[in-house]
Amino acid sequence: MSGHPLTAVDLLLHNAQVVDVVRLRTYRGWVGVRNGKIQYAEEGEPPAGLEAAQTLDLEGQFLAPGLIDAHMHIESSLTTPRRFQEAALRHGTTTLLADPHELANVFGPSGVQYLLDATEGLDLQVYVALPSCVPATDFSLETSGGEITAADVTRLADHPRVRALGEVMDYQGLARPGSRLPGIIEAAQARGLLIEGHTPTLGGPVLSDYAAHGVLSDHTLSTPAKLYEQLSKGFTVMLQEKSLNREVVEALHGLPDRSRVLLVTDDIMPNRLIGGHLSLIVRAAVKHGLNPLEAMAMASLRPAMYLGLRDAGLIAPGRRADLVVLPDLADFRPSRVFVGGTPVFPGERPLPDSPLSPPGAELTRAPSRPAEFQLLLPDGRHALAVIGMNDRNTFTTLNYEPQAVVGGEIQDPEVTRVAVLQRSGDAPPSLGFLRGLGLTSGAFATTLAHDSHNLLVFGQDTAEISRAVNHLLTFGGGMVFLDGEETLYLPLEVGGIISDAPLAETAAAFDRIEAALRARGVTHLNPLLFLSIFSLSVSPAFKLTDLGLLDVERRSLIPLVQQLERAP
Amino acid sequence: MSGHPLTAVDLLLHNAQVVDVVRLRTYRGWVGVRNGKIQYAEEGEPPAGLEAAQTLDLEGQFLAPGLIDAHMHIESSLTTPRRFQEAALRHGTTTLLADPHELANVFGPSGVQYLLDATEGLDLQVYVALPSCVPATDFSLETSGGEITAADVTRLADHPRVRALGEVMDYQGLARPGSRLPGIIEAAQARGLLIEGHTPTLGGPVLSDYAAHGVLSDHTLSTPAKLYEQLSKGFTVMLQEKSLNREVVEALHGLPDRSRVLLVTDDIMPNRLIGGHLSLIVRAAVKHGLNPLEAMAMASLRPAMYLGLRDAGLIAPGRRADLVVLPDLADFRPSRVFVGGTPVFPGERPLPDSPLSPPGAELTRAPSRPAEFQLLLPDGRHALAVIGMNDRNTFTTLNYEPQAVVGGEIQDPEVTRVAVLQRSGDAPPSLGFLRGLGLTSGAFATTLAHDSHNLLVFGQDTAEISRAVNHLLTFGGGMVFLDGEETLYLPLEVGGIISDAPLAETAAAFDRIEAALRARGVTHLNPLLFLSIFSLSVSPAFKLTDLGLLDVERRSLIPLVQQLERAP
Repeated sequence: MSGHPLTAVDLLLHNAQVVDVVRLRTYRGWVGVRNGKIQYAEEGEPPAGLEAAQTLDLEGQFLAPGLIDAHMHIESSLTTPRRFQEAALRHGTTTLLADPHELANVFGPSGVQYLLDATEGLDLQVYVALPSCVPATDFSLETSGGEITAADVTRLADHPRVRALGEVMDYQGLARPGSRLPGIIEAAQARGLLIEGHTPTLGGPVLSDYAAHGVLSDHTLSTPAKLYEQLSKGFTVMLQEKSLNREVVEALHGLPDRSRVLLVTDDIMPNRLIGGHLSLIVRAAVKHGLNPLEAMAMASLRPAMYLGLRDAGLIAPGRRADLVVLPDLADFRPSRVFVGGTPVFPGERPLPDSPLSPPGAELTRAPSRPAEFQLLLPDGRHALAVIGMNDRNTFTTLNYEPQAVVGGEIQDPEVTRVAVLQRSGDAPPSLGFLRGLGLTSGAFATTLAHDSHNLLVFGQDTAEISRAVNHLLTFGGGMVFLDGEETLYLPLEVGGIISDAPLAETAAAFDRIEAALRARGVTHLNPLLFLSIFSLSVSPAFKLTDLGLLDVERRSLIPLVQQLERAP
Repeated sequence: MSGHPLTAVDLLLHNAQVVDVVRLRTYRGWVGVRNGKIQYAEEGEPPAGLEAAQTLDLEGQFLAPGLIDAHMHIESSLTTPRRFQEAALRHGTTTLLADPHELANVFGPSGVQYLLDATEGLDLQVYVALPSCVPATDFSLETSGGEITAADVTRLADHPRVRALGEVMDYQGLARPGSRLPGIIEAAQARGLLIEGHTPTLGGPVLSDYAAHGVLSDHTLSTPAKLYEQLSKGFTVMLQEKSLNREVVEALHGLPDRSRVLLVTDDIMPNRLIGGHLSLIVRAAVKHGLNPLEAMAMASLRPAMYLGLRDAGLIAPGRRADLVVLPDLADFRPSRVFVGGTPVFPGERPLPDSPLSPPGAELTRAPSRPAEFQLLLPDGRHALAVIGMNDRNTFTTLNYEPQAVVGGEIQDPEVTRVAVLQRSGDAPPSLGFLRGLGLTSGAFATTLAHDSHNLLVFGQDTAEISRAVNHLLTFGGGMVFLDGEETLYLPLEVGGIISDAPLAETAAAFDRIEAALRARGVTHLNPLLFLSIFSLSVSPAFKLTDLGLLDVERRSLIPLVQQLERAP
């Protein structure tokens, strides 16, 4: 055996503390890379006779496998895939499963195809989950853009990077008579896709009825009891940052087998992506008491096993040389990153060519007039539906309040006017009112309005509202905040939801708009998140769609004015 | 949630101790089965309103998932798949990955197709690994039957139950110039197959070179050090019975993550299969100190994950209702077995229809004459190659001994005559000699002669040898032992290697032949195993093929008579 000649390698990394995510240990050793794959991962010093085209002394730094994010949405970072890649790779995320839920809602199947095309040939390995619930609700509750059918799933599943059906919404969606979901799940199973779940509330036999459809994972807010029940019921449990706390980490320690628990990002806002990606979740887990090696295994080997990726997730022969050099084990901040043996950080990689946008879904609406946002009511007091909110999450309430209306305008300065406009055509806006936002002046308009991404606008004054809408129409979608002389905007030129600008620019514009809202009295923890969810027809409890005020639980539209319907 | 109506089930199993192989616990609970799948797996008592077509009170017995054997050869039990199923199901094995290495060696690709056809529609879920090393050596060292090429792999991989490429023999086979193996592995990887290994001896960078070809598992004799190195190098380690001892179990306890360690059977002789299957390995692991729940996880959920079977391996909603009822947790002896919710034990299931044999590979040789087994040497002393053996394993030695030859016959009663004959044609037998078997009289002939399954015969007398061969030829292959008036035989009518007789008959005939050999002085621990390996051209160190005496390590034929070649 000793006479066996070693294979020459392209890259030799030595004097490393190699992270072994199988045995959850580190060892002083070396790694040889050949043709983009790991040829050797050995303890000790490299043998004298080993030929290496390039040698790098890691000076005792840790060498870990690239992180793998098994559940996430690139659109949440408001960036195109190639801009997302720039940001994610430097933080050590080298592989992910992206669910283009927003692109599909705007563009339909061609939004999914765009994601596949725009991730082709990237350094970042992007696998794709086909969105299962597009549109989120029946068409009668709102006007939505895209639709993904069982036939689309069958066709798109042919792509070798399509691995999963994206989050199947929980019980209601499956059990509703006439639901398209069971057929979509069957189509996905027939093509061998993983079936991803989304079940914030189910437990007991109801959770089993849901899982019996073939749902394999959940990534919603977890607790120790939910974690345990879901594991026993065969779920792979994906912990995102909001699920990580001391209790959940203690529950993890109580498990003899943690191989079916993963760390995922789900949604990372652009301004957070500047500081980390899946690394943020690893750091959060460690902060709450999880062993860093365990946290890394939950973000590398275990997601690879879940996704069926046999060539990634650990530093072992035959695997992709997706490698991260870490000065510190607990604080996952890479000093170097390699993808397929190629250094991708530090240093700039050329921006890859990419298709710029899927076809369709242009913002073709004619400019608005302030009068469109006025109530067609006689002057006087009316019982108006006013949505209530809190500062922490996106839950809302509803109350009919007596409000004085003069010239179609309400007079209460503590109530914000809201409107939703279809992206094209000339249907009148639907109008609503919101108490508790705190906005004192100015207007905010956005096409980032989950899930249908119609044009959503908030403001204190109908003239400003109209001006914000019209400004947004001039650059194809995104976000606008204006207040008198001040105008801030974030163009999201791909479907009005993502931008191909460098992430730093997108994040800065995002921050400026958020700061402007806060400066005008908005007190919500995540104002832009709250506002962009205000039209989401599956988010409890009361939302505004382009067709009117929605009671989400009852799945019905309700009148804006009690007893007195708004005139047509 | 409480108002949710439960789904009616076909079968309700209650008052059970349900085995949870994810959390490695049992819980008092109930399981509901619908359409062959698990609909509910819940703690406590079933709710009053649950509709069930059939209800079974398990009276506190354990309910475990059916066992999954990730590496095995059905042919080792000398049975056809439908007879194997009868035997395996009652011991709780409900799913397996079969590598038809012997069928392929005899029949080539049609042997693999036969296995696929003969396992279609069985209760037992049979996935298939395509044999990678058929024939085991170059044709110049022996005459072999079947051959599996890269093109065969590509074609056969289309079958939905083909999951893997079977055991890639270790370093030599991969590194040899002109080896077909790398091309076969590439073909298998291109079709998404798992690549199974077989590496008894490799370690360090040489093991890495082997693994870098994409090899994902090993099932050969393990040790704590080998287990640890292989896990770190990305192998899934499969422990068969001979690998299980207190040291290896202690090494398992030292691992924080045991999800990549499996229990497998590899080879189970027919007389052992009467008493258990993968259950034997589970019991052995428990005997050596492994927690029974851990042992079960290594033989259910973990092989399912390795094989990419998302619908099996645990008792959870959406999974196949492959269930085993156990009176005792540590002693895995099922009192009931269900497959897809259907009871398969106790009670008889109808024997399924099955194709009876692949085409080709008939035993068409003309009857032999005693003179064919005599040496063509003048009377006198000659330096003859005599193979040496031990009583425990299949390792052999070689020594040239001066032996008196009279009339072509050696005179030493402690040396057994051996011959290998091609299955067809009229090439003369190759002759050899074996010291240490202990056989005092009679002759044993078999077509079960790994891997090429030529006709292998042992005896003390050339007339008996010829008679044994000729008797074997009359029934198409199998095993014969005869000694004067006594004749024992085991027909293996499918290719001379497996039988469609009920397992009890096959096992009884096997036992009778083994007992007869022992009664004639044979002292080896596993005589029929030793004898059937005597022609295996990759088994160290000296073997006899139809072309002559083989030095396995040097991969060359060597003369039977020193200095004096046997006359043509």
